[in-house]
Amino acid sequence: MADKVRVALDAMGGDHGPAVVVSGAELALRAHPESEFLFFGDARLVAPLLDARPLLKVASRLVHTEVAVRMDAKPSQALRYGRWKSSMWLALAAVKKGDADVAVSGGNTGALMAMAKFELRMLPGIERPAIAALWPTLRGESIVLDLGASIGADAEHLVDLAVMGAATARILFGLSRPTVGLLNIGVEEVKGLEPVREAGRILREEKLPDLDYQGFVEGDDIGRGKVDVVVTEGFSGNIALKTAEGTARQMGEYIKAAMSRSLSARIGYLFARSAFRELRERIDPRRSNGGVFLGLNGIVIKSHGGTDAEGFAAAINLGRGVVLDQLLAKITSALDRHHGYQQRALGGAAS
Amino acid sequence: MADKVRVALDAMGGDHGPAVVVSGAELALRAHPESEFLFFGDARLVAPLLDARPLLKVASRLVHTEVAVRMDAKPSQALRYGRWKSSMWLALAAVKKGDADVAVSGGNTGALMAMAKFELRMLPGIERPAIAALWPTLRGESIVLDLGASIGADAEHLVDLAVMGAATARILFGLSRPTVGLLNIGVEEVKGLEPVREAGRILREEKLPDLDYQGFVEGDDIGRGKVDVVVTEGFSGNIALKTAEGTARQMGEYIKAAMSRSLSARIGYLFARSAFRELRERIDPRRSNGGVFLGLNGIVIKSHGGTDAEGFAAAINLGRGVVLDQLLAKITSALDRHHGYQQRALGGAAS
Repeated sequence: MADKVRVALDAMGGDHGPAVVVSGAELALRAHPESEFLFFGDARLVAPLLDARPLLKVASRLVHTEVAVRMDAKPSQALRYGRWKSSMWLALAAVKKGDADVAVSGGNTGALMAMAKFELRMLPGIERPAIAALWPTLRGESIVLDLGASIGADAEHLVDLAVMGAATARILFGLSRPTVGLLNIGVEEVKGLEPVREAGRILREEKLPDLDYQGFVEGDDIGRGKVDVVVTEGFSGNIALKTAEGTARQMGEYIKAAMSRSLSARIGYLFARSAFRELRERIDPRRSNGGVFLGLNGIVIKSHGGTDAEGFAAAINLGRGVVLDQLLAKITSALDRHHGYQQRALGGAAS
Repeated sequence: MADKVRVALDAMGGDHGPAVVVSGAELALRAHPESEFLFFGDARLVAPLLDARPLLKVASRLVHTEVAVRMDAKPSQALRYGRWKSSMWLALAAVKKGDADVAVSGGNTGALMAMAKFELRMLPGIERPAIAALWPTLRGESIVLDLGASIGADAEHLVDLAVMGAATARILFGLSRPTVGLLNIGVEEVKGLEPVREAGRILREEKLPDLDYQGFVEGDDIGRGKVDVVVTEGFSGNIALKTAEGTARQMGEYIKAAMSRSLSARIGYLFARSAFRELRERIDPRRSNGGVFLGLNGIVIKSHGGTDAEGFAAAINLGRGVVLDQLLAKITSALDRHHGYQQRALGGAAS
């Protein structure tokens, strides 16, 4: 009973719509049979897919809506025609009403963020949500944020990202004091964007009890796993994530080409087949699909729009883990402590 | 005689200083025995290294200076203590005076840019230099710029980067009308940074004869080789480059680990050894070391500070290619055409 997680799904989101969302839910249910699903979308498209999956259908409820947020809509447009009634909005509303523990959408990121902010509201002291994801590294996994929820960030927002990211790392990785780095284009204190330097100064001086600030990190430090939490604003974070995914795919193609070039390489491939299978799984971007929206009064997972059923199932499972780990409650209390510290610091300065 | 390229070297630049610069020059000389080198640096450190390499010594001249720009100096500091006399400055001055065809430095990027701007001056109509590099892709190679010469960019600077990048692609790749994309966090026109959207509008409307503007590209499109030229401002460009390098290194480690996990994998590795050797070379970031400074009245190559002799030799060879291809003259004439077009467009609007 404690492990039963209720998942609200935007069935119309993503490049492939209901086909991927429903098959993804089926895979997630197979892994965790105690899950429950609440689908929001066009019943003419979703119902037949559920009918074809009796086990999933039993665990699911379908709420019909004709309105879907287009992948290329501006957030303001999406709010205008999609508020109260789109599949994306209804999935978020289900979390707000307590009908679901988590909402998962592969839809338009900007619209999802705007709607989530509107319907779920931000945590006290947080201005803008962030998208955080688990990034596979040579040491295990790191948390990287923001991956595109908002573009640009002032120093205070970067510090909030550090606090939220560290809280996430404490919970997901079970660390007492995760290491945190600010993504920059050089490790020297004089380099880089002004807000990044200023955020570094604040983090050094505040010496927060819950995180261990390690200074600036560069793009190649992410995969190295130099810190548990990598903090950056959304534009460069999104570019880093997509570039890493592209490079991993490129390496996969190179390996494939190299292993078919000669007879002896092909023989070698046969011997090492299971090693290659492991390798392929390890560098499969679908495995780490799903970003957690942080900073909201409610749990929302953004899946890649272009993923397949397996990738979508990974996003659902990520949401499940976040719910069971009570991430939200723990982030809220970490933020309370941080903002309380700031209040005291300001009070001290004023007195 | 036509192929003789004279290279000015900042012998004190980079994390490893003269040891890497001198050995790199030795490797470059071996590949192109008609090269000539002009070393600037501390003779007490550089002379013994040259003495140990008689062939290189014959092809080289050494100019002593005690002043070296520190890797962590601010550009303004570096200019204050390093102008007229540091090894970095003297290498650039050699290009200006015509004593060398190209300057190569692995030193402090910000200082190198500031000094290059000061000593070599910008091309007409260009405000800030850019660093461009060749990026290996699934289709061959693309040019990516700016990789960190300056942080942030307005729309006009991005358009200048597109024009300079396309000119470089025409020359290095022999294309008549290279495809160009603007790096963004979504391919829809409504997404991303305002200057990027505005630059996209200008490029669409100008319909420049020398480049084929293809719209926005995302991080994973770079490795895919979707366009010949990827344009972005320096902060995100540097993060993309370093993240890709880090990911390639990470994949290399994964392959190594996978191939030693079981006996059959180890046997497979033996059969496929030469395929793995090729693969390793292909993903070796040293092979594509070296960024070209664009927008200056003179050719300057920035090497990674942390590279080894092979990487430094690659940077020298890149410089050699750029000189022989007469890149500078061709970029200048492309910019003349572009700015002439703008003048006419403005004139037309005013009349």
